[in-house]
Amino acid sequence: MSGRTPDAANGEPVLAIICGGGSLPFALADAAVRRGRRVVLFALREWADPQRVAAYPHHWSRIGQFGRFLRIAAEERCCDVAFIGSVVRPSLWQIRPDFGAIRLMPEMVRLFRGGDDHLQAGIGRMFERHGFRLLGAKDIAPELLMPPGPLGARMPGEQDRADIARGLALLDATSPFDVGQAVVVANNHVLALEGPEGTDQMLARVAELRRNKRVNTPAGTGVLIKAAKLGQDQRIDLPVIGPPTVEAVSAAGLAGIAVVAGSTIVAEPERIAAAADGAKIFVVGVGANEPVR
Amino acid sequence: MSGRTPDAANGEPVLAIICGGGSLPFALADAAVRRGRRVVLFALREWADPQRVAAYPHHWSRIGQFGRFLRIAAEERCCDVAFIGSVVRPSLWQIRPDFGAIRLMPEMVRLFRGGDDHLQAGIGRMFERHGFRLLGAKDIAPELLMPPGPLGARMPGEQDRADIARGLALLDATSPFDVGQAVVVANNHVLALEGPEGTDQMLARVAELRRNKRVNTPAGTGVLIKAAKLGQDQRIDLPVIGPPTVEAVSAAGLAGIAVVAGSTIVAEPERIAAAADGAKIFVVGVGANEPVR
Repeated sequence: MSGRTPDAANGEPVLAIICGGGSLPFALADAAVRRGRRVVLFALREWADPQRVAAYPHHWSRIGQFGRFLRIAAEERCCDVAFIGSVVRPSLWQIRPDFGAIRLMPEMVRLFRGGDDHLQAGIGRMFERHGFRLLGAKDIAPELLMPPGPLGARMPGEQDRADIARGLALLDATSPFDVGQAVVVANNHVLALEGPEGTDQMLARVAELRRNKRVNTPAGTGVLIKAAKLGQDQRIDLPVIGPPTVEAVSAAGLAGIAVVAGSTIVAEPERIAAAADGAKIFVVGVGANEPVR
Repeated sequence: MSGRTPDAANGEPVLAIICGGGSLPFALADAAVRRGRRVVLFALREWADPQRVAAYPHHWSRIGQFGRFLRIAAEERCCDVAFIGSVVRPSLWQIRPDFGAIRLMPEMVRLFRGGDDHLQAGIGRMFERHGFRLLGAKDIAPELLMPPGPLGARMPGEQDRADIARGLALLDATSPFDVGQAVVVANNHVLALEGPEGTDQMLARVAELRRNKRVNTPAGTGVLIKAAKLGQDQRIDLPVIGPPTVEAVSAAGLAGIAVVAGSTIVAEPERIAAAADGAKIFVVGVGANEPVR
């Protein structure tokens, strides 16, 4: 690898990046390379962007090819592994396990009987039992995380801050049930809780509730609040925002976005700030357990 | 009135029924008449069914005509009042208060800054301050409430019972936030939480999650669980199920419906039982705070 930094001298092990959709896997790979690490992408077919994958050492993979992963990871001398990028929870029946994975099937059947955290934590443990160190964005590239305070020019107002506090408290309450990581609150009124549909679909629902007059809070009120679940393995699944989140929040007629600083991955922060200012919405990093100021 | 029962001799006061959409207002009116009460319907325009309203003493009304309500209720000697039937939460700006309501506007502005419970409890207090006794279906006609046990032939299985317990616990946790009264849980996995969109829209979302493969629990698994919110004024807003709920649950590919016995209004129980048996789903009344057996 060219462009090795002094970190490389520390002999940081090669990093296997299990790479889903979107731009985040490449942001993580670039951040690791900037620190002098060698990275190898295990690009998930149908999810990872082939054009961008081509710029990195990579192997195309399918979910379930655990035997193949173990073989290639040994050849590439990968000791660390990170999961990043969008993947819709697969069906157990969509997974075609290879020879190395087939004996893990009884365990996988159990993992699939529950929420996403349950599934992800179990997959994480599977890699760890085979000697890999599981790392998250926090460990590899903290600069990908949301900082405290606003990303653009706007700040939440008084009612917005009350809505943010209510949303964070609600996410705390639902957290033990391994359900969504996002809610919409407008003038103290909970407009939506995220389920498996994801944040963008939930925001489309809020836009529809407004169109159908099922919800009558005026445009420009309400906040999308996202927070990692308590006890969630933050190495595997942190909440994410990106420029499309800003677009969807603007289309839903909300005032802004609040996420937990230090526990939310931000894709393309400069583009988010510009989009937020253009749409006149705020994007703010807040503390999970402190009053919103 | 013909058909007076001995109750009438007790001089039960005339009952004003503020009457939204669906068949429930008429079931409630019939039950009150069977007990020898005189009823007067205040039929909400755009919600109440004009053909069915015509069969009862009635006055057409709009939300916000509180002055007119007070005048007619005095003429009709109504002392008790009940709210029943579907009404979508109105916008404060859609309400055209009459002269009697206009001085209540500062209070109404406050009521509209919150969830449905907050709004409904405030409206209830407004009637009570004017000397009316606010009654619910429980007080007037307990036979409209869900009994314990199944309505049709089917019973929940072991996994269904676990899903019901999880759903009830989740509804308990979200209850203080004045959010929806329903969730869908399948194989321990929370598929949806109800917001202002209502139960039918939430079930349509579950059906779509299945079509889009965002959710992969097999057809015939999962339960719709409904429960009144803790601290909710059960005189004003109890959860309701009717034959359309069975249809929507069947279309979403779920195994059944669980509601809290004694705290859920059942529209047309015989039709529900027949529809449930036809669709091969269960409909069961459970205890709110006891293990599901």
